[in-house]
Amino acid sequence: MAGVDGSDQRALHSEQTLELGSSTKKEADWLTESGQKSSVSKRRQTLDLLKKSTGCCSKCRMCMLQCQKFLISCLGEDWIFLILLGLFMGFLSWAMDCCIETCLEARRVMYDHLDSNVLLSYIAWVTFPLVLISFAAGFTQFVAPEAAGSGIPEMKTILRGVMLKKYLTFKTFAVKFISLAFALGSGMPLGKESPFVHMSSLCASLLFKFMSLFGASYEHRSRKMELLAVACGVGVCSCFAAPIGGVLFSIEVTTTFFAVRNYWRAILAATLAAIVYRVLPVWASAEETITALFKTHFPVEFPFHLYELPVFAGVGIACGFGGALFVYLFGLIIRFTRKKTVSKFFMKRRLLYPALVTLLVSSLTFPPGFGQFMAGKLAQNEALVNLLDNQTWAKQGTDWDSDHTGHSEVWKSPQNSVFMTLALFTIAKFLMTVLSITMPVPYGAFMPTFIVGAGFGRLVGEGMAAWFPDGIHTNGSIYPIVPGSYAIVGAASLSGAVTHTVSTAIMVIELTGQITHILPVIVAVILANAVAQSLQPSIYDFLIRIKKLPYLPELGWGHHDMFNIRVKDFMKRDVKYITSICCYKELHNVLMSAHVETLALVESAESMILMGSIERSQLQSLLSQQLSRSRRLEYIKERAAAEEKHLSVVSDSNSDAGPQKASQEIHFKEDGDVEDEMTYKEIAEWEEKQLDEQVDFSSCKIEEFQLAENTSLYKTHTIFSLVGLDHIYVTCSGRLVGVVSLQELSEAIKGSVKVKGAKVPRPLTSLRDSGTGTSEPEATELHKLWDCPKNKSLPCEHSPSKSNEKSQ
Amino acid sequence: MAGVDGSDQRALHSEQTLELGSSTKKEADWLTESGQKSSVSKRRQTLDLLKKSTGCCSKCRMCMLQCQKFLISCLGEDWIFLILLGLFMGFLSWAMDCCIETCLEARRVMYDHLDSNVLLSYIAWVTFPLVLISFAAGFTQFVAPEAAGSGIPEMKTILRGVMLKKYLTFKTFAVKFISLAFALGSGMPLGKESPFVHMSSLCASLLFKFMSLFGASYEHRSRKMELLAVACGVGVCSCFAAPIGGVLFSIEVTTTFFAVRNYWRAILAATLAAIVYRVLPVWASAEETITALFKTHFPVEFPFHLYELPVFAGVGIACGFGGALFVYLFGLIIRFTRKKTVSKFFMKRRLLYPALVTLLVSSLTFPPGFGQFMAGKLAQNEALVNLLDNQTWAKQGTDWDSDHTGHSEVWKSPQNSVFMTLALFTIAKFLMTVLSITMPVPYGAFMPTFIVGAGFGRLVGEGMAAWFPDGIHTNGSIYPIVPGSYAIVGAASLSGAVTHTVSTAIMVIELTGQITHILPVIVAVILANAVAQSLQPSIYDFLIRIKKLPYLPELGWGHHDMFNIRVKDFMKRDVKYITSICCYKELHNVLMSAHVETLALVESAESMILMGSIERSQLQSLLSQQLSRSRRLEYIKERAAAEEKHLSVVSDSNSDAGPQKASQEIHFKEDGDVEDEMTYKEIAEWEEKQLDEQVDFSSCKIEEFQLAENTSLYKTHTIFSLVGLDHIYVTCSGRLVGVVSLQELSEAIKGSVKVKGAKVPRPLTSLRDSGTGTSEPEATELHKLWDCPKNKSLPCEHSPSKSNEKSQ
Repeated sequence: MAGVDGSDQRALHSEQTLELGSSTKKEADWLTESGQKSSVSKRRQTLDLLKKSTGCCSKCRMCMLQCQKFLISCLGEDWIFLILLGLFMGFLSWAMDCCIETCLEARRVMYDHLDSNVLLSYIAWVTFPLVLISFAAGFTQFVAPEAAGSGIPEMKTILRGVMLKKYLTFKTFAVKFISLAFALGSGMPLGKESPFVHMSSLCASLLFKFMSLFGASYEHRSRKMELLAVACGVGVCSCFAAPIGGVLFSIEVTTTFFAVRNYWRAILAATLAAIVYRVLPVWASAEETITALFKTHFPVEFPFHLYELPVFAGVGIACGFGGALFVYLFGLIIRFTRKKTVSKFFMKRRLLYPALVTLLVSSLTFPPGFGQFMAGKLAQNEALVNLLDNQTWAKQGTDWDSDHTGHSEVWKSPQNSVFMTLALFTIAKFLMTVLSITMPVPYGAFMPTFIVGAGFGRLVGEGMAAWFPDGIHTNGSIYPIVPGSYAIVGAASLSGAVTHTVSTAIMVIELTGQITHILPVIVAVILANAVAQSLQPSIYDFLIRIKKLPYLPELGWGHHDMFNIRVKDFMKRDVKYITSICCYKELHNVLMSAHVETLALVESAESMILMGSIERSQLQSLLSQQLSRSRRLEYIKERAAAEEKHLSVVSDSNSDAGPQKASQEIHFKEDGDVEDEMTYKEIAEWEEKQLDEQVDFSSCKIEEFQLAENTSLYKTHTIFSLVGLDHIYVTCSGRLVGVVSLQELSEAIKGSVKVKGAKVPRPLTSLRDSGTGTSEPEATELHKLWDCPKNKSLPCEHSPSKSNEKSQ
Repeated sequence: MAGVDGSDQRALHSEQTLELGSSTKKEADWLTESGQKSSVSKRRQTLDLLKKSTGCCSKCRMCMLQCQKFLISCLGEDWIFLILLGLFMGFLSWAMDCCIETCLEARRVMYDHLDSNVLLSYIAWVTFPLVLISFAAGFTQFVAPEAAGSGIPEMKTILRGVMLKKYLTFKTFAVKFISLAFALGSGMPLGKESPFVHMSSLCASLLFKFMSLFGASYEHRSRKMELLAVACGVGVCSCFAAPIGGVLFSIEVTTTFFAVRNYWRAILAATLAAIVYRVLPVWASAEETITALFKTHFPVEFPFHLYELPVFAGVGIACGFGGALFVYLFGLIIRFTRKKTVSKFFMKRRLLYPALVTLLVSSLTFPPGFGQFMAGKLAQNEALVNLLDNQTWAKQGTDWDSDHTGHSEVWKSPQNSVFMTLALFTIAKFLMTVLSITMPVPYGAFMPTFIVGAGFGRLVGEGMAAWFPDGIHTNGSIYPIVPGSYAIVGAASLSGAVTHTVSTAIMVIELTGQITHILPVIVAVILANAVAQSLQPSIYDFLIRIKKLPYLPELGWGHHDMFNIRVKDFMKRDVKYITSICCYKELHNVLMSAHVETLALVESAESMILMGSIERSQLQSLLSQQLSRSRRLEYIKERAAAEEKHLSVVSDSNSDAGPQKASQEIHFKEDGDVEDEMTYKEIAEWEEKQLDEQVDFSSCKIEEFQLAENTSLYKTHTIFSLVGLDHIYVTCSGRLVGVVSLQELSEAIKGSVKVKGAKVPRPLTSLRDSGTGTSEPEATELHKLWDCPKNKSLPCEHSPSKSNEKSQ
């Protein structure tokens, strides 16, 4: 019974819970909690409890119980879960904003207070983020290192089916929240959205655990995966109050296939999160009503001229290159810090690296210093609001001073022009962001790149406005140029290029509350993606590779080989397997020689018919059970009983007392040290005997999921990414011929991408080399190569038995 | 060789094409065109051509060929395909709009011309649509009946993997375009979007065929499916110039799982389609620049008060009920027309039904008649523009006359109030739409329901405005109520409820070009969906059921049973199978007795180990090949040769001339009638002998896709909807135990939905009934039930061999 796998137990168990109509809620709770205990003892206890509860029931109590049951079943519903998650994440996001605002306000006050003395104000300007970042880095590193970083790569891995348990604990959640508040409060160019994706998933996971106390169906892995995917969307939305863009963004960055069913669940929860996030400031009287986060006021009647489209497209392409450069530079820095000497140096002084980076970045932004040339005084959100406004800064106009808020003078001063400031802002922020996200604190890369992109777009827009100071003339009308529109195009493009998403287009529209520029934004984002995707992986995929998480490359588009390459072209043919008729000794030998997670179970070494796969742990428990102390005790007991019987027969004593006495003796023996009963030699002999017995696989959970060897790379990729597989066995007419793991598949995909359009499956190539003109034999040869031999008398050509040492 | 399946041949073939570096383009074309011919003869000819071309090669020609090859490989790229598709669909949508506008204009001119005489103008008003609809219906029914109707249900079925070939031909495309232009030009409440989804897929399919002349990789089925899914999105976008909403809408209505990879391909093509569709009017000088299709001018600063949210939510819920009522009424009418007597009556007079409906609808909208109470004069788009404007009609204001276009007086006249008109408009349009979409012409249901929803929303909005004539007072400020915002909420909700989508929220925002009301729209749409989904299927799913297309119900959310119900609980245990060692006679018998598309191939009737499944057609060709004339001729040839040899040995004639003569004789025999050589008795004997031979399955394509019996309903659903399966065999440790077809799965899903939260798998229930308290045997029993028996000596408990007549 011990061999029954956990998920099955839980499935079985939940059904039992559903059936226990007359049992109390407490019992149901107890039932769910005890999922880990062995199922036999559990079932016994359940039945005992059941008997007790039915004994003392009354009508009134029954009614109450039914009410309770109804409430519990309600709590098990998805929509309750989604509403709770949405509400909580909205609140959390608002609370985070308050924390950040407080920190930034404190820094500003301190800096303004010490304005008279440059040195003092520099110290204040630099020390504040230094302390905050050091605390965030230290707290993360010493309490929960999993809380550091983005979180999206880990969520992508988890949604691929690899459960990283440490990443979904309450400790991680608490540490991530606190560290993130400190990190963002420091004013460093870091974003909030990726950690919020992680935190939302953490919330969902914890809510899962909590809710499973009431409704048993929260136990299912598939369901958990679905709701985690939804939670990722909620995380993004709660940051940006962008329900649709947020959900789509999270879908793009975390999944390969998306169940349409989940789409509207995600939108439901995300909308709630967005509403809560935007309603709380209204209640706190900070705002009048629910509006967009970074509202713009571009002209609605004539948003842009068609002649501007190529410029927008140009911005998109430039941002594409910028995005690729961002990932490349990030990689360079990461590789540098991972060099032996460097990493050794920083390993001893863990807080030194973040401190150095913070010092550099905050020194650069010091307003009286270099900061004056790059609007260093502005916090991230302020800078973004500035960049998106619908005035033209380059114009020497009249309405410049009258319409503007106090901040705008930072972009334009007697010493430097708007173009200079914008260019320096863009370049400096770009480099500072790359540097900042190498720190071991919770961070998001989306918002900083969004702002850098906005800066670049604004630069182009101001340039256009300077080039056409009176706007574009057509058909007798004049259409002015709005630099702010270039800023939103740039922002969407660069963030899209870095993350390889097109949903940034929708997000930017939801963020600005204006849809007038949807077409240029989409065009630019698509172009930026096309450029960036062909040059570098996305920042998240890069992180997955750097962190060495299980990784499956995306299938690009246009790689037609994925339809032509078959599993048999890249599978590993040397498969470790066990036969269904093997003895424990053989099992032991295979387990010793093969260091794999699962082993294939075939009918016999001759037929090689695959019956399924068994996990290593199950086989090990089978083996240890066979040689276990309890079985040895049983053996001793039997032996003793046999001897006793023999003795009783010999001595001819009282026939009733005999067995009783014997069992008493045995009972005594069990309490005492039984090892004494058998010498080591005896034990070894006994074990040897045990190992010669045939293995009984009936208690194992045998997974039956296999692939035909003619399956295309495309389909294999689909199956891997959907089912979240680690490896799969390959068969040819039911016979085991190979295995494909994530590694082989990844290499095959990379290979097919590299030799794009040129690679052909090996068999045909070798055939052409040896082909000598006669067509009939070739046809037969081809036939043999492209259809697997189905004739029973023929041995399967790729039979692993040749290479396997276990073949008889 | 004849048994090799088509897709494999094509795969093989495409690789050959790629390899033919030195062959000319013509040859490549020829190669792709001749895909249908038998592969042996094809290969022979290819090699001949290859020899010829290498014979006359020169450096200059090589260079040209390489250029050609590059161009051809470029044409094979996805993005070329997507750009062409986008451009073409954008153009097509614009052309369609022009046609419709011309028709509507003609009707208007005719009506205005005959304004003096009511009878004459009535005849003109009614006759025009009558003629157009009758032509559309007749043309569709007599030329290509597949062109009638929406098209989305068929596309959903095709994307599920069931290829409905007739729906993707050029004839269907042409008929659909012409009929749609006439149907929409008639002014009946029909929409353009669903037929455009179909037409876009048709375009994609035809473009596929065209492009596969250049790039061979267009042959792959999986790739075709991916690009068809993209095409559906392009279709919606080309109608509404809503790239994101359109793509999401098409995803929601056509697929269950969506590859994220496709998402940005779809957006690329959709954006192009939208640009072309909106740029063409600019070039034709009809518009100034690219803006939204139905642009609104709602206040941006304070779009809505928080107190209005509950009212918006109320509109959403009401629209949810409205959507369900729409589908219900549609079903009633369809069922009525399908009654024996009614359908018999209309079958004889095919054009009578559409003519009657058109007569009724156009009589109702006759402006001087009932039409004056429901704005009957307005075309659909005009009505929508009116409903979305940001004035308050109910207000007895000053700016009413000054600001408005000429059309607005239709909503308000001395005889009837705004409320009266709006209420009648909503109800009449609702009923007219339900009636119109039962006609056998191409139609979409989206746009009419959108307008009805807008009417309802406007009604509520005007009511609110009348209730709060001065707007809502809070904090000393006054916020006026904008009835137009209620109209967009109503429009998105009702269309969302009818189609069961939430993307209508994004679509309405892209259509109106204002994102200010995103939150109320999303909230209302979600509520409308929640109500409608719990009452009725979507209009598309309803059509799928009515048309009896292969159908897989969606898994709702909250049905936890889908994780608990296992395949073994609903699979069919009576499986038709053949053994790998059977003779042709047995094969013949099985084919005669079982009327299924595929047959399972098991190792032997004793072991029942599943080796795969073979299509019926392949088995039939195996059988017919075994009994074929050519084999009989060969037999005769051999017999003759043997006789000849025998004779030559006997007569001891010239040893060289003998065989030659014999072969000549045989050659002669082949030309002449050979049947004479064998009597019918001989043939029967020969056939009997042939049937006793063992079947050689080596030339068959054996599909190896199977499911373990413990797979949950959830996973089964996922696999079915992803792979587009029709049925799948179920195994237990490699042994065939049952089969699940679409039907069983559908029933299981329906069953799990019906007994929501109460159903438990059968084995456990039956066990509980028979359980007698002792816990140990129960545990064992449970163990046996929940884990399939793995012990080899035990026969599989659900072995179909018991019920199958073929067991030996």
